[in-house]
Amino acid sequence: MSNVVATYRIKAKADLNKQAEQIALGLTVGSWTSLPLVDQEQLRAHKGHVVSAQYIDDQYAKLAISYPAVNFTNDLPAILTTTFGKLSLDGEVKLLDLDFSNELAAAFPGPAFGIEGIRKQVDVYDRPLFMSIFKGVIGRTLEDLAEQMRQQALGGVDLVKDDEILFENEATPIEKRVKTNKEVLRQVYESTGKRTLYAVNVTGPTRQLVNQAEKAQAAGADALLFNVFSYGLDALQMLREAPEVHLPIMAHPAFSGAMISAPNHGVSTSLLLGKLLRMAGADFSLFPSPYGSVAMPREEALSLKEALVDDQSPWKRTFPVPSAGIHPGLVPQLIADFGLDSIINAGGGTHGHPDGAEGGGKAFHAAIRATLDGVPLEKAAEGSEPLAKAIQQWGH
Amino acid sequence: MSNVVATYRIKAKADLNKQAEQIALGLTVGSWTSLPLVDQEQLRAHKGHVVSAQYIDDQYAKLAISYPAVNFTNDLPAILTTTFGKLSLDGEVKLLDLDFSNELAAAFPGPAFGIEGIRKQVDVYDRPLFMSIFKGVIGRTLEDLAEQMRQQALGGVDLVKDDEILFENEATPIEKRVKTNKEVLRQVYESTGKRTLYAVNVTGPTRQLVNQAEKAQAAGADALLFNVFSYGLDALQMLREAPEVHLPIMAHPAFSGAMISAPNHGVSTSLLLGKLLRMAGADFSLFPSPYGSVAMPREEALSLKEALVDDQSPWKRTFPVPSAGIHPGLVPQLIADFGLDSIINAGGGTHGHPDGAEGGGKAFHAAIRATLDGVPLEKAAEGSEPLAKAIQQWGH
Repeated sequence: MSNVVATYRIKAKADLNKQAEQIALGLTVGSWTSLPLVDQEQLRAHKGHVVSAQYIDDQYAKLAISYPAVNFTNDLPAILTTTFGKLSLDGEVKLLDLDFSNELAAAFPGPAFGIEGIRKQVDVYDRPLFMSIFKGVIGRTLEDLAEQMRQQALGGVDLVKDDEILFENEATPIEKRVKTNKEVLRQVYESTGKRTLYAVNVTGPTRQLVNQAEKAQAAGADALLFNVFSYGLDALQMLREAPEVHLPIMAHPAFSGAMISAPNHGVSTSLLLGKLLRMAGADFSLFPSPYGSVAMPREEALSLKEALVDDQSPWKRTFPVPSAGIHPGLVPQLIADFGLDSIINAGGGTHGHPDGAEGGGKAFHAAIRATLDGVPLEKAAEGSEPLAKAIQQWGH
Repeated sequence: MSNVVATYRIKAKADLNKQAEQIALGLTVGSWTSLPLVDQEQLRAHKGHVVSAQYIDDQYAKLAISYPAVNFTNDLPAILTTTFGKLSLDGEVKLLDLDFSNELAAAFPGPAFGIEGIRKQVDVYDRPLFMSIFKGVIGRTLEDLAEQMRQQALGGVDLVKDDEILFENEATPIEKRVKTNKEVLRQVYESTGKRTLYAVNVTGPTRQLVNQAEKAQAAGADALLFNVFSYGLDALQMLREAPEVHLPIMAHPAFSGAMISAPNHGVSTSLLLGKLLRMAGADFSLFPSPYGSVAMPREEALSLKEALVDDQSPWKRTFPVPSAGIHPGLVPQLIADFGLDSIINAGGGTHGHPDGAEGGGKAFHAAIRATLDGVPLEKAAEGSEPLAKAIQQWGH
């Protein structure tokens, strides 16, 4: 029977089995033993049941509850409301995981492109991709942005993304922004032969999102950046499934901290930024790297990565993009932690290079090559001035 | 200058002013003192600034940061991304409030009906309204629902709402459900003269929500129940502003616990379930009452109520609906805490009455009348058998 099994960490009550049973019933048929037999017959297929209930320590327990898929429709709002609707308000309880039956999982699209699809677009197969971010773009002109884009592209980055706080504005509206940046990328490609993708921030009211994405697509955008958690997971799926739009989607974690950061409340990182983003259709999932000042604990980041790329899921794989605090000296660590199928993403670590974004990009590429060749960075720096300067600036 | 001032409670760093300044700059122009003067000139109107920064105790501080409205568009996803995007991921930080300039506030619709508009619809002006909820509806037939509806309406309830976990399903699809329930309400009105409104759960993919709401409206629904937090605040505003739909919207708090329940992370209750729901257009805001087993602390519930009904806002007022654990014996307390302009909402406290939902409804009405007349419930129970039975069952 198609179902979803939700796993919770919850403040345990005196009778754990009763507590679990009350959740299983309360979020499905309401009650059971008090029901007439004829009602039990009618409701049997709808009844939630306790899969397991175990104490973690003397305060908390782990509960797994199965909810029949017949109770809800195949969309994330319905599933979240069922598994963590009222329950989210019931004291200390964290939703750790949702385990979908094959039939239910198959109702969700997953990424349209995935890691393999993105690799084809940038024509890079044998190393982590490298991405950089526009910086300080609020209040800037198209010319300012074009110059930043040129520097980044000359540094050889595979992808450039908008800053997530850049919204529709008079100076750099989405269509002009895409056209201007793409023209720069065309020019750089002609002179260097290096292809760079541009992910533009799709913003505005929910009802106009698909429209905005279409505009961006028509203007030539290569991908969409999307602040999914300021909207809702299903808005991401709406973009993913809109027949009018066929672009990779980069999910930004803005506002997700409101749901994932508390130890005993909310949703686990690997579920929210991992499995759910992937099933809803994100091709990239950005998250705070374990190395920066805005940091995610390493274990958490690694289990998130696993949820994005594991091959137990029916969906294409989503690129993990550990972000923030990344500089060239961290490349060996990044590759050791997140593997070849990840993205090295640096804003400050690109633009802040003594030779600007172009030097920053070159330093990162030198660091990536060295790491893949098994050459220590200090040694590689001897043959790469940009890398030497980066290491001098940030260490390794 | 139009702006939003965000107030945070945050884990204080050694240099609080520097910490605040870094947020104000990091979420707007990026940097300042290092910028050339000509850039400062260009960016001055976009620069965030610190309104106040004060220690609360030796660990936490309260920061107020002003963000110029020119930096974002007039939609909640843009405002949440600006004020609590990246910052939500930066350790212990809770978004306490957003204070909108008049110009910015005026860009948001607020409730279409509000407390006054809803009162007109039910033609009740001098007491709290009384609402009840379908119970145990998963797996049930239209006939089962019709019978529940009849009992509730005969009890004299002003509003009946769907259970939030009832989604589109074969047995009770939205149009048939509305038509069936409205026919019951018509019959009861003919026999009793009492008008009852029915709020139907509008569910499914984001892209089809307006469509679903239209269907419900065409079938005769009086109001929409909406699990806004499983979607996103802007999906609520989309329903509110859809030109095709003109129905009151009841916001259910399902999943909101993932954002409001943690002490040092997420968003304050009065902001998320209060001000933001109101500005996005909710006519009703449901939340856990301070009295039930799924309880919200009393102070928190009262400040939430205040955000829904204060007259400092440009928007119509939203009905506070303290829910869960409500029985007739609590009516004096409810009215003392939440005032006349609130809704007394009971599921179990209506259906669980010894004489069923009809008896439950009558008991609530007797309790409301007695409280408004200044008559103690024990005394009122002498003249009301339903109230006497309710008090015997649940106390007071």
